[in-house]
Amino acid sequence: MLSIAQNLDRQDALAALRQQFYLPQGTIYLDGNSLGALPVAAKERAVEVVNQQWGQDLITSWNKHAWIDLPLHCGELIAPLIGAAPGQVICCDSISVNLFKVLSAALQMQKGRSKVITTVDNFPTDIYVIEGLRQQLGEVSCELVLSEESEIETQLDERIAILLLTQVNFRSGRLLDMRRITELAHEKGILVVWDLAHSAGALPVKLDGCNADFAVGCTYKYLNGGPGAPAFIYVAQRHQGEFQQPISGWMGHAAPFSFNSAYAPVPGVKQNLSGTPAVIAMSVLEAALNVWSDVDMLRVRQKSMAMGEFFLECLKACGLDDEFVCVSPDSALERGSQLAFQHQHAYAICQAWIDAGVIADFRAPDLLRVGFTPLYISFEELWQAVNKLKLIMENKEYLRDAYQSIQTVT
Amino acid sequence: MLSIAQNLDRQDALAALRQQFYLPQGTIYLDGNSLGALPVAAKERAVEVVNQQWGQDLITSWNKHAWIDLPLHCGELIAPLIGAAPGQVICCDSISVNLFKVLSAALQMQKGRSKVITTVDNFPTDIYVIEGLRQQLGEVSCELVLSEESEIETQLDERIAILLLTQVNFRSGRLLDMRRITELAHEKGILVVWDLAHSAGALPVKLDGCNADFAVGCTYKYLNGGPGAPAFIYVAQRHQGEFQQPISGWMGHAAPFSFNSAYAPVPGVKQNLSGTPAVIAMSVLEAALNVWSDVDMLRVRQKSMAMGEFFLECLKACGLDDEFVCVSPDSALERGSQLAFQHQHAYAICQAWIDAGVIADFRAPDLLRVGFTPLYISFEELWQAVNKLKLIMENKEYLRDAYQSIQTVT
Repeated sequence: MLSIAQNLDRQDALAALRQQFYLPQGTIYLDGNSLGALPVAAKERAVEVVNQQWGQDLITSWNKHAWIDLPLHCGELIAPLIGAAPGQVICCDSISVNLFKVLSAALQMQKGRSKVITTVDNFPTDIYVIEGLRQQLGEVSCELVLSEESEIETQLDERIAILLLTQVNFRSGRLLDMRRITELAHEKGILVVWDLAHSAGALPVKLDGCNADFAVGCTYKYLNGGPGAPAFIYVAQRHQGEFQQPISGWMGHAAPFSFNSAYAPVPGVKQNLSGTPAVIAMSVLEAALNVWSDVDMLRVRQKSMAMGEFFLECLKACGLDDEFVCVSPDSALERGSQLAFQHQHAYAICQAWIDAGVIADFRAPDLLRVGFTPLYISFEELWQAVNKLKLIMENKEYLRDAYQSIQTVT
Repeated sequence: MLSIAQNLDRQDALAALRQQFYLPQGTIYLDGNSLGALPVAAKERAVEVVNQQWGQDLITSWNKHAWIDLPLHCGELIAPLIGAAPGQVICCDSISVNLFKVLSAALQMQKGRSKVITTVDNFPTDIYVIEGLRQQLGEVSCELVLSEESEIETQLDERIAILLLTQVNFRSGRLLDMRRITELAHEKGILVVWDLAHSAGALPVKLDGCNADFAVGCTYKYLNGGPGAPAFIYVAQRHQGEFQQPISGWMGHAAPFSFNSAYAPVPGVKQNLSGTPAVIAMSVLEAALNVWSDVDMLRVRQKSMAMGEFFLECLKACGLDDEFVCVSPDSALERGSQLAFQHQHAYAICQAWIDAGVIADFRAPDLLRVGFTPLYISFEELWQAVNKLKLIMENKEYLRDAYQSIQTVT
């Protein structure tokens, strides 16, 4: 398997991109789906924005270094990665806050309908935001409907206002068919909000091509924007006239520095800005996004799928495929850029793997989640990672941790 | 005046703090009320959080470097500066977003009342957030009432749900009497939300002492947290049981990593967290807040008031006091840490002053705003700044700019 891995690495058209990232020596990082690695350009920008722009140019940087343009500029850098024509994406706030804006605005656009449907195993914050809106507006104006992911298509009817889906399931990695589901929903007059947390930067997303209505996403996973980096929001051009989000702040005003007391939203996606943008974080994000300027997202997808398949083969070659039950879809075409495995000792195994220099993550109650980031991970690393896992399972090192964690809980 | 300034600087108990900040050579910075200067500790932390914590320790930093605790920890560092006992302040999002949370929650607590009153010359985002809420909830549930600042106390009656005030007016610098106004409002059953944008770090704020209900504030002005640094929110202990803010995200859940689909807010102020915290920005902020650990806020207030008085004396000594009409209150006790002057050429004069190395700011339509930041500005600098202003006025340098700006507009 080692020679296969090395051969795949030699043929890898994205291999040179690794030079644009810092990665700790002796670590194999399979958790870029939680927090992307540090781009060299982002590290340099952090020093520049703090020392020079803040420290030396102070308040004049709003114009001198175009701080004021960062949210739209970052949005325009993300747009081609998610299949959006210009003028529809802006960076701001968090996914949770952006979901609140878009769900509230979309509910207003769907007069006479109050149901918001999502999947029961969606990422919790997506469900919580609907619950928060229901608590605020009342059950009559906002009703939460939870459906099994596999049954979502049969649940769509004319009483539903909004369908909120995460394109790639955060646990299983299942990739939903954005085009078909959006089309089905539109046939029933439903507006669709896509959460791209696990798809932006992981695979080609085609928001415009799928006739999407709205989307949100984060930039700290596959887009490598840094821990807690600002999120983004997409509002399709055709909705921008009617769309009005409720958290109206001065940065979303048509003339923020006129200091008028009457709110007049700036036309377009920019009205999603509320408060002062997070300049340091957004400047670092902008530098990180520039890594993508020459990256072909189809190549990223090809390598991502190949990595998933290769990882499964490595498990098989090491005789671990029976013990680790893969709960992700069988076909690489139906997965995002991750694999999830069920194991009763998943937590302890994950800890032992980290101790051995392989960072993956654990998702309660019993999933080991492995993420593939084609920009900076090699096939040889995957083989090494599985080998380390094999040693852990042979030596049952993890049982000590498992025992300790049981001791802690009880 | 120079010798008076130098004498005041020699007696300045806060003078040594300047060593904890970077300030550009040859610049006198009188705009710390817009963006605070860069603390040495913040610069070092920026490198540490990006290079080491993100770059080397990656996802493990959430525990290893306690990223998960940053919002509460920063809140606890701010609490003593605003007179709040522990457990009532947390850092998150922007002022606009936090105002939305607190206004929505407070409206729910005030069943039967729908009016939200604020001042017509409040900072616009405060008014816009009320307008956004009105647009979302409807006029029946949220009605905006605008009052002149001078008449606010006579406008309070039992039909009003919430009084939203900025403690220090962003234009005039007028300092409102938090204790008296809060008491008057409470007599009518009104909940009060204080915006501390221009008071946190500028003067001793006594939220608990004034029996305040709620407050929001930013950290990028007098608290020197960096451009677009996270804001904070205060919820008085007695309201924390009933308070429920609508933007319910996973970080405000009682058990965020259990990934339950039912939202159960964590008890206390922490439920104000929505999405993933802005780690880089908040880590830099934490370092900046540590500057305050040994600072006596009464000393800050004394120096701030002395600086305002001294600046006015310098203007008089230079014969500029007639030309620059001070629109701030006469008494230093009724001002925050800034002065505002009306001048028909304020914009052009501000530009010429910046060209001469003095950074103040302009507020439309005709105000020159001068901020005093006792932690890093000296009396001698104030004297130098006014001298430069005198030269500008004598040479009428600003008229060239004024002429050019007229050319641009027409």
